[in-house]
Amino acid sequence: MGQLPKPGELLPPAATFTPQHLAQRDFGGLTDAVEATAKALAATAVARDRQGGTAWEERQALRDSGLLKLAVPATYGGPETPWPDIYRIVRRFAEVDSSLAHLFGFQHLQVASVALFGNPRQKERLLGKTISENWFWGNATNGLDTRTTLTWKNEDGGYYELNGIKSFCSGATGSDMLNVTAPRSTDPADRVFLSIPTGRVGVKVLDDWDNMGQRQTDSGSVTFTQVRVEKDEVLGPPGTAGTPRATLRTLVSQLILVEIYIGNAQGALLNAWKYVHEQGRPWFQSGLERASDDPFTQQRFGDLRIVLRGAIALAEDAEQRLQHAWNRGDALTAQERGELAVAIFETKLAAASAALDITSKIFEVMGARATAAKYGFDRFWRNVRVHTLHDSLDYKLKDVGLWVLSGETPAPSIYS
Amino acid sequence: MGQLPKPGELLPPAATFTPQHLAQRDFGGLTDAVEATAKALAATAVARDRQGGTAWEERQALRDSGLLKLAVPATYGGPETPWPDIYRIVRRFAEVDSSLAHLFGFQHLQVASVALFGNPRQKERLLGKTISENWFWGNATNGLDTRTTLTWKNEDGGYYELNGIKSFCSGATGSDMLNVTAPRSTDPADRVFLSIPTGRVGVKVLDDWDNMGQRQTDSGSVTFTQVRVEKDEVLGPPGTAGTPRATLRTLVSQLILVEIYIGNAQGALLNAWKYVHEQGRPWFQSGLERASDDPFTQQRFGDLRIVLRGAIALAEDAEQRLQHAWNRGDALTAQERGELAVAIFETKLAAASAALDITSKIFEVMGARATAAKYGFDRFWRNVRVHTLHDSLDYKLKDVGLWVLSGETPAPSIYS
Amino acid sequence: MGQLPKPGELLPPAATFTPQHLAQRDFGGLTDAVEATAKALAATAVARDRQGGTAWEERQALRDSGLLKLAVPATYGGPETPWPDIYRIVRRFAEVDSSLAHLFGFQHLQVASVALFGNPRQKERLLGKTISENWFWGNATNGLDTRTTLTWKNEDGGYYELNGIKSFCSGATGSDMLNVTAPRSTDPADRVFLSIPTGRVGVKVLDDWDNMGQRQTDSGSVTFTQVRVEKDEVLGPPGTAGTPRATLRTLVSQLILVEIYIGNAQGALLNAWKYVHEQGRPWFQSGLERASDDPFTQQRFGDLRIVLRGAIALAEDAEQRLQHAWNRGDALTAQERGELAVAIFETKLAAASAALDITSKIFEVMGARATAAKYGFDRFWRNVRVHTLHDSLDYKLKDVGLWVLSGETPAPSIYS
Amino acid sequence: MGQLPKPGELLPPAATFTPQHLAQRDFGGLTDAVEATAKALAATAVARDRQGGTAWEERQALRDSGLLKLAVPATYGGPETPWPDIYRIVRRFAEVDSSLAHLFGFQHLQVASVALFGNPRQKERLLGKTISENWFWGNATNGLDTRTTLTWKNEDGGYYELNGIKSFCSGATGSDMLNVTAPRSTDPADRVFLSIPTGRVGVKVLDDWDNMGQRQTDSGSVTFTQVRVEKDEVLGPPGTAGTPRATLRTLVSQLILVEIYIGNAQGALLNAWKYVHEQGRPWFQSGLERASDDPFTQQRFGDLRIVLRGAIALAEDAEQRLQHAWNRGDALTAQERGELAVAIFETKLAAASAALDITSKIFEVMGARATAAKYGFDRFWRNVRVHTLHDSLDYKLKDVGLWVLSGETPAPSIYS
Repeated sequence: MGQLPKPGELLPPAATFTPQHLAQRDFGGLTDAVEATAKALAATAVARDRQGGTAWEERQALRDSGLLKLAVPATYGGPETPWPDIYRIVRRFAEVDSSLAHLFGFQHLQVASVALFGNPRQKERLLGKTISENWFWGNATNGLDTRTTLTWKNEDGGYYELNGIKSFCSGATGSDMLNVTAPRSTDPADRVFLSIPTGRVGVKVLDDWDNMGQRQTDSGSVTFTQVRVEKDEVLGPPGTAGTPRATLRTLVSQLILVEIYIGNAQGALLNAWKYVHEQGRPWFQSGLERASDDPFTQQRFGDLRIVLRGAIALAEDAEQRLQHAWNRGDALTAQERGELAVAIFETKLAAASAALDITSKIFEVMGARATAAKYGFDRFWRNVRVHTLHDSLDYKLKDVGLWVLSGETPAPSIYS
Repeated sequence: MGQLPKPGELLPPAATFTPQHLAQRDFGGLTDAVEATAKALAATAVARDRQGGTAWEERQALRDSGLLKLAVPATYGGPETPWPDIYRIVRRFAEVDSSLAHLFGFQHLQVASVALFGNPRQKERLLGKTISENWFWGNATNGLDTRTTLTWKNEDGGYYELNGIKSFCSGATGSDMLNVTAPRSTDPADRVFLSIPTGRVGVKVLDDWDNMGQRQTDSGSVTFTQVRVEKDEVLGPPGTAGTPRATLRTLVSQLILVEIYIGNAQGALLNAWKYVHEQGRPWFQSGLERASDDPFTQQRFGDLRIVLRGAIALAEDAEQRLQHAWNRGDALTAQERGELAVAIFETKLAAASAALDITSKIFEVMGARATAAKYGFDRFWRNVRVHTLHDSLDYKLKDVGLWVLSGETPAPSIYS
Repeated sequence: MGQLPKPGELLPPAATFTPQHLAQRDFGGLTDAVEATAKALAATAVARDRQGGTAWEERQALRDSGLLKLAVPATYGGPETPWPDIYRIVRRFAEVDSSLAHLFGFQHLQVASVALFGNPRQKERLLGKTISENWFWGNATNGLDTRTTLTWKNEDGGYYELNGIKSFCSGATGSDMLNVTAPRSTDPADRVFLSIPTGRVGVKVLDDWDNMGQRQTDSGSVTFTQVRVEKDEVLGPPGTAGTPRATLRTLVSQLILVEIYIGNAQGALLNAWKYVHEQGRPWFQSGLERASDDPFTQQRFGDLRIVLRGAIALAEDAEQRLQHAWNRGDALTAQERGELAVAIFETKLAAASAALDITSKIFEVMGARATAAKYGFDRFWRNVRVHTLHDSLDYKLKDVGLWVLSGETPAPSIYS
Repeated sequence: MGQLPKPGELLPPAATFTPQHLAQRDFGGLTDAVEATAKALAATAVARDRQGGTAWEERQALRDSGLLKLAVPATYGGPETPWPDIYRIVRRFAEVDSSLAHLFGFQHLQVASVALFGNPRQKERLLGKTISENWFWGNATNGLDTRTTLTWKNEDGGYYELNGIKSFCSGATGSDMLNVTAPRSTDPADRVFLSIPTGRVGVKVLDDWDNMGQRQTDSGSVTFTQVRVEKDEVLGPPGTAGTPRATLRTLVSQLILVEIYIGNAQGALLNAWKYVHEQGRPWFQSGLERASDDPFTQQRFGDLRIVLRGAIALAEDAEQRLQHAWNRGDALTAQERGELAVAIFETKLAAASAALDITSKIFEVMGARATAAKYGFDRFWRNVRVHTLHDSLDYKLKDVGLWVLSGETPAPSIYS
């Protein structure tokens, strides 16, 4: 670096080029796979954002990258990539394509669900095949949608029958396997996870996702009509709440959201950087030659950077702590889990606020011409705006405040 | 009012219904025309936002409303509606359709341009026909785009030849008349306004506007190829800078932008209000029955309202001051004009900030389901985000700061 | 104005000099009295802020100014100065001496209490003597402190006996008359106002006020030991809640607080302005000759100004509405009163936020040397910080939010 | 913890008690010394803040603690405590007594100055005696005050004569040794550091520090009248700018400021916590029993905590990087030093903003009664407000922005 580019001097595309002082592109042995995939996603991201629907080719690119297997433990033949590394890849993808980053992140969440909830035999089978079959996982686990039912049938050797519908089923479309939640009994708290093939008779993935952001996460509905579920397809023990360790799933999930926010913020900042260098014009009253010489532009870039760095510092700290808790296995205590939850909630609130701020303010350094639809620069804000509503930030904040006041950590739940 | 609706109880569509305590719908004798037009715009606004392009039918609705004539002075047969009233109508339309509100506002800006820059004969002709022919005006006056040239031709009785291109020509598509700026000489400051029929030979309105917001303002490019401009079609004296009064044009324009911001903010707030009442669900941890009982939701609505009211208070004050300056006519001094400019800049900065804030935060009271594309709730932010980049807010703020420090008012310019 | 002063060029003291473009000093026929008093308060305000205690001389200056009588209606021989004018004087005094401004404002609040709560005979007597004796009123009406009792005694012709203690009794020290609240019965809502001479046997004004801000408001405690209160000294009918009009008292009070905030903010801004012009130094890296040439300094002054103007615009609007409601007299409806309350709460929240912001940020344009104790520039923040805690802003905001959501106005109470 | 205290239930004094989930009190082998000193400082901190002047007893407590020696490298007989540990102690002291924390931090800065600027013989002598004599160091090095002169005298074996005055000489009062800066020649950039006994003939430490915050930092003026300075008392080589390593001094200093901000913020938060638990009252409209049950109070505590954590995360990261750079010794490159500077500037901006925010907002959870002067809760804000003006944050931000835009790191200077 060291020198501002001259106006009009074109830099390589933002997808493949990054100013080294602003973002690292080193993912160790995974660097080639990650960067090649990021490049593939970036190439058509703006067009696909407009178009919505399913990104079939890019889903395939994720499969082909080999990166869907990262979270599978070594015991089951996987690379057992540490969570902080996985999160950095989620962030990298979210810089260029927030929807596919979501699908990528949620793949690991499904793998983690099996690893945390399943019994040894289930893990052996489901995680082993995730490696051998290169399974792409989807989910139908929206905790606020309680329209699925599970009924025990004595006939035919005994099985469960799954009926109903789930909304917000990110990644279900085109998936091989599906995690599904349903109450096992009339007690709604007795929620179980099922892992079944998406192709099973009676499962229908609807193509009804059309949102203002995260447009290719295929987060539509899935209907279940007399779907047969074998006893062994219900994960557990420990199941969803058998141990403090099992409840880590929500926290794995919350940090995926965090990295989606941060990735969008970082992508927005890098695109603004590139735009200002290549196409920025100084304001006519400024008397300056280059947009980048403007003191207000410098100030704004400084501000955006600092806000981003604060979010990243908290996120990387939280990810290290998650890995530590993960490594503790069944020794993990409820108190340890609770303190980790607080740290992650704090991080999420900071990252959400940072990302909303950054993705809106980038326009202030770029100016009116940067609002042309061809750039698609608004997608960063739209993605963050949608995703920061995943679960209530107000109640996360209240949980943090309650902990500050009382030292009591939040009870594990579908969102905490 | 007096009672929160019960959950699921449907209110009339937001376009036609407004909680009376949150917005007034009384435009005096114009109420029927304004409300009927607002309703027509609202009916398809979400769909047209997605689709972009020219809103032919809605442009026609504006024509049919009779409201295009409002700014024409009584002397020339017009209703001479006071500016504060016109601005309130701009705000009303911007609540439901920010693009058409823009076209509507800029109609009056073009009329004002003729009224301020034209000589008596020109005003007689151009404003008289605005009434008799119900002209819809467009513009090609982007001050930062200096690619038009005007050359004097001695032949054929003497005329100017206009060549070149202008970008950001809001409202040119489908217009009857066009205001165009060009330098009269090699001195770029010697900028003149031309008023010519859009249909004149050599004028070509391109269909190249495709932006992330304000998607139907038809703000594309217009090319001029050997366009013949009669001497009398160049407005003046006084022209653009002959008197302090003439320089009011920029200020008329800046307040249109302000009301576009405020209208979007108000539209966003009203839609959030309606959504929360009809479809809001309390967060599962809240233990409440209705979303509107949530203390954080109440707090957020309070915050959004206060921010909006602050912007409106400043805007209405500035609009009264503009009307006062307008009424002063040629007696208006440079100092008076300068102080008005400061008040308007302050207002614009406050309104821009308020509108960006409100149009983003409405989602926090509505939640994830409100991000479905069918609602189009993101358009409020996109419209504001685009329009607040019209000219540099940083330099407006610097102008205000300079005035605070020195008492010197900003010099009139294309944007100040 | 027109020119920045040169560095080191001394301007007249801030108390007597004001850049005309930043604040008006025209109070009509009261201008001389107001400005002379403001000057007297300003002369020693910094020293008295450090010292605390009672400002005996300045209290006398308020008496001597004749301005204590302003709120007394013409019917009772007073000037019946419109509320908006009184509020502007509160603001003016708060620019230089927030404590005395508070005492001044609360004088009018006590007069208003009598005018609103008293029966005709009481008004005749108490307001008449406020004029003839130039009474300075104090209060012992803290609604959250319920330690006073009022007991009916049949002996000696019948009278009430007042016992107990009140905290936060602003202005009691050195006052002629005291408004006191106490429950008339065991029902705590049956609160009455008493107007008694401060010198009555059994009334003891303690000198126990020592706070971080508003240091000379004498807001200490008053104890009542077997104080005889005549039946006719209990105000009413209508008393505190007999009519919507009577409940205007709280709103009169809330707008006094608002103007204390605004006055401090304006005083802070003007002092920063003066300091920057006289003593400001450009930062050594800026390459500029004068602090006032710094783009960031200009930006900050612009920001502070805009925030202040927003608060003032809302306050002046609310004050006009209050006057209108006041003029309505007994015709005022509960709904009208409620809508006024909402407007005032909105104003208070905006003004509190603005004043906290401005009084802290002025230091950023002045720099480290401006923190010398001799300037006392921190008193603006301290005053605002103390006074914005007078009653809960959180619950005012909730009230506004509830109104937005339901159209229901807040029920009149001791603070609303 | 685990349970909110009941209202009125007294907790141990904030100085000695800390809710373990909010702050760690483990300083390894230094814990006893640190906590005993913190307790001693806390006991009288509020009273001394009001009184100002020199804290003779508390200065002695710092001497007696043995902690003044921490930064002396092992080579010279010191404990060579890692910088991150020293910074945590600065933070701990700043929680209770920001002035003494400043003196404590600047002690280590003076030691670092000798370690960075001195030649081996100087280090041997000055650092050795810092250990053996338990020297307390002060400074007279204000880089913006250029009124000192240094003149070479040939007589008497040759020596320098130091004349002039320095302002903002924190810690000079009562110090054993003084670091002084002066230009060696007519080139102002040729600034040298002198280390001389405070008691030398001609050195006069004035008692003229009276500021609104940081009231006991003894940051007054020092005058120098024909002070003889031996050649060997001028530090160097390398002196102040001989190597990238030497320029680390400014960065050591900037992180001391950061921890002063964070310490005040943390102290403010802990005091608010204690106050709310012991004396907090729910707002009368809330219908709640305890202030800590209020959703807005919980929300505010959550917010304050998150802001604080963000600042701490950046600070601890920057401190680790500083230690790494320190360990690099003369191998440290200008580029490495520059990147560290950017990280520290970012941290400083974030911490300054966080601390200003927190120290003001604590009042919103405590309410009006917490403004009694006896609590001294405003001192946190006053300390932060003063100290965040130490050097221009605007230009630090510009430096960060320039680096974002260009990759160029800030040139080392007296403040960067």
